[in-house]
Amino acid sequence: MTQWQQALAEIKRGCEEILLEDELIAKLKEGKPLKVKAGFDPTAPDLHLGHTVLINKLRTFQQLGHEVIFLIGDFTGMIGDPTGKNVTRKPLTKEDVLANAKTYQDQVFKILDPQKTRVAFNSEWMEKLGAAGMIKLAARQTVARMLERDDFKKRYANNQSIAIHEFLYPLVQGWDSVALEADIEMGGTDQRFNLLMGRELQKDEGQRPQTVLMVPLLEGLDGVQKMSKSLGNYVGITDSPTEMFGKIMSISDDLMWRYYDLLSFRPLEEVAALKQQALDGRNPRDIKIELAKELIARFHDEAGAEAAHQDFIQRFSKNALPDDIPEISLTIAGESIAIPQLLKEAGLVESTSEAMRMIKQGAVKLNGDTKVEDAKLEFAKGSATIFQVGKRKFAKVSLV
Amino acid sequence: MTQWQQALAEIKRGCEEILLEDELIAKLKEGKPLKVKAGFDPTAPDLHLGHTVLINKLRTFQQLGHEVIFLIGDFTGMIGDPTGKNVTRKPLTKEDVLANAKTYQDQVFKILDPQKTRVAFNSEWMEKLGAAGMIKLAARQTVARMLERDDFKKRYANNQSIAIHEFLYPLVQGWDSVALEADIEMGGTDQRFNLLMGRELQKDEGQRPQTVLMVPLLEGLDGVQKMSKSLGNYVGITDSPTEMFGKIMSISDDLMWRYYDLLSFRPLEEVAALKQQALDGRNPRDIKIELAKELIARFHDEAGAEAAHQDFIQRFSKNALPDDIPEISLTIAGESIAIPQLLKEAGLVESTSEAMRMIKQGAVKLNGDTKVEDAKLEFAKGSATIFQVGKRKFAKVSLV
Repeated sequence: MTQWQQALAEIKRGCEEILLEDELIAKLKEGKPLKVKAGFDPTAPDLHLGHTVLINKLRTFQQLGHEVIFLIGDFTGMIGDPTGKNVTRKPLTKEDVLANAKTYQDQVFKILDPQKTRVAFNSEWMEKLGAAGMIKLAARQTVARMLERDDFKKRYANNQSIAIHEFLYPLVQGWDSVALEADIEMGGTDQRFNLLMGRELQKDEGQRPQTVLMVPLLEGLDGVQKMSKSLGNYVGITDSPTEMFGKIMSISDDLMWRYYDLLSFRPLEEVAALKQQALDGRNPRDIKIELAKELIARFHDEAGAEAAHQDFIQRFSKNALPDDIPEISLTIAGESIAIPQLLKEAGLVESTSEAMRMIKQGAVKLNGDTKVEDAKLEFAKGSATIFQVGKRKFAKVSLV
Repeated sequence: MTQWQQALAEIKRGCEEILLEDELIAKLKEGKPLKVKAGFDPTAPDLHLGHTVLINKLRTFQQLGHEVIFLIGDFTGMIGDPTGKNVTRKPLTKEDVLANAKTYQDQVFKILDPQKTRVAFNSEWMEKLGAAGMIKLAARQTVARMLERDDFKKRYANNQSIAIHEFLYPLVQGWDSVALEADIEMGGTDQRFNLLMGRELQKDEGQRPQTVLMVPLLEGLDGVQKMSKSLGNYVGITDSPTEMFGKIMSISDDLMWRYYDLLSFRPLEEVAALKQQALDGRNPRDIKIELAKELIARFHDEAGAEAAHQDFIQRFSKNALPDDIPEISLTIAGESIAIPQLLKEAGLVESTSEAMRMIKQGAVKLNGDTKVEDAKLEFAKGSATIFQVGKRKFAKVSLV
């Protein structure tokens, strides 16, 4: 393989779609550092493994010698939600933005090389644009084109209101690519429309259009819904080594292989070798331990990973979970359910009052280790947890 | 009649629609000077009588003691046509805007009192708004609401493209009303949607919404299509007294009464008296002369009006037009037609070569006086002209 072919293979690992691959090849063949842009919302700096799929890919580009631009969309963040309907999206101040940017960097520099990362804020060029510039930008696209975007199309068809400024946000994102002269923009598959907008605006400006690389949305611990903080099925990259270890050990074997593809830095040949070992009878739990340790070492350190492992072994031997825990899928009405009701519906207790009593006695445990002390503990839809009541009753309950 | 009732009657003369009349009454009853806004495009300072219907109404407000704000929409004018599709809409410079504003004032101050007119430019507040302010403004309205506007609705239904910035312009116009704290906004009936936008944005800002007064679109000299420079059926307010006289004398009797309603400053009782005189057998031509003289005196002076009248009489007696000129309506394929073809199709000559010969001999006249010297003269669709070929052949030809 030539150098660019090797680079292409590494870039394509875990990528869902590239538009257009031929362009990417042409750019790689030039052998010059490319500007690789990825945009981040300044309001939610609490990253989880789902976000790292993309950040890992940025790391690949860095390792190949390209320039990564970590773009913080502070301009729109400082506008907040102008419709006022979303109380949780208050406008951010400049100070908020800088504080959030700092938190971001603390987190992403566990993966990215700070020396090869340019952190940019789009307010830099958006504030200069002015109202006239915004109008000119809006003239670049048509209403019909915007209504082709999946979510707009659906909302329009269902008579759900679309505020006009929502049409401006994809243009702002596209204009960022013009301002940065991006060669490549990365994003999730849900960003497809906005990523392509950058290509169009760059063409209008006489620039070479950016190549768009889309990464898949990572499934959460439940293996079904996408990883998300609000669904509770996530591993935060600031989670403690013990938390990370427990969460990763709770995933299914299938999901483990998905995580190996999207999250592990091991070469593909090594991952293939692990798969062969599993086929040859190696306990998947041990392969899961290797994944957990790799990820903990990345966000903490080797020592932390080892300690979490030892801690797990100790609690596991003290308090071993049986191999044949029944798996239960429980449909709940609301967004979450309190533990007494959950235990009753899972058939682990006869009544909620029995549940309360067992909790009081310290006889209810989560994931083989954590003793439940609060009877008001809530579990969110999307979560998957192993419950133990007394010595012998076990169930892995997924809430849907 | 109380003072406000009298004011209301004067305001309502020639108004097509008031939204809402009750609000207007409440405002008039307060007895305080109201801010009356009317917006003008900075690109076309060549006013004709059609524009003066609205300006006359502004004059009424001035006479009632209110403050007229002559708003020049320079902000959007300086953007030009950002789609680049319309080559005639180049961006204006600040100097262009000021020069055009001067020309506007030279023209409108023949009707309005300069002392009671505030000339404003919307770039004053729009430039301060910034891109963020523009986005916030765009958040105030929904895509569905914009697509309710007649022309947008039709274009969207017909798959004709609508650029996104076109959605922003009604918001800019509405924001002007907020910035000016307008009590009343005047406009043509074709401005209905944009005028109502001001009401909505003012309500959002906690202001009392402006009352919207719409004036009808004035029919041009042909009595059918709206007066417009491009249709050639207009009387420019900088036309010479002679031109004005000739053009006004060419209109139909029906149209004359419409012009009396919308353009004359004579009290309604006097207009009613003139109508009675016509019924009693007075020659409508003489009533038309009074209208022509009133309008010429307004845009020039009494002496000019009198001179134009005398000039008309002289040429009329020298070169009298018969009373029974046949009226011909000619359908043309393009936007205009050259005089030889026109004369042939109107049956005034046998062939275009006869027409050329007659023009060369000086035997073709327009409107009873102007000798045609150029065989390439074109007449626009919408125009109505009396042609004379030789001594006896006459026709009033309307081009449709």
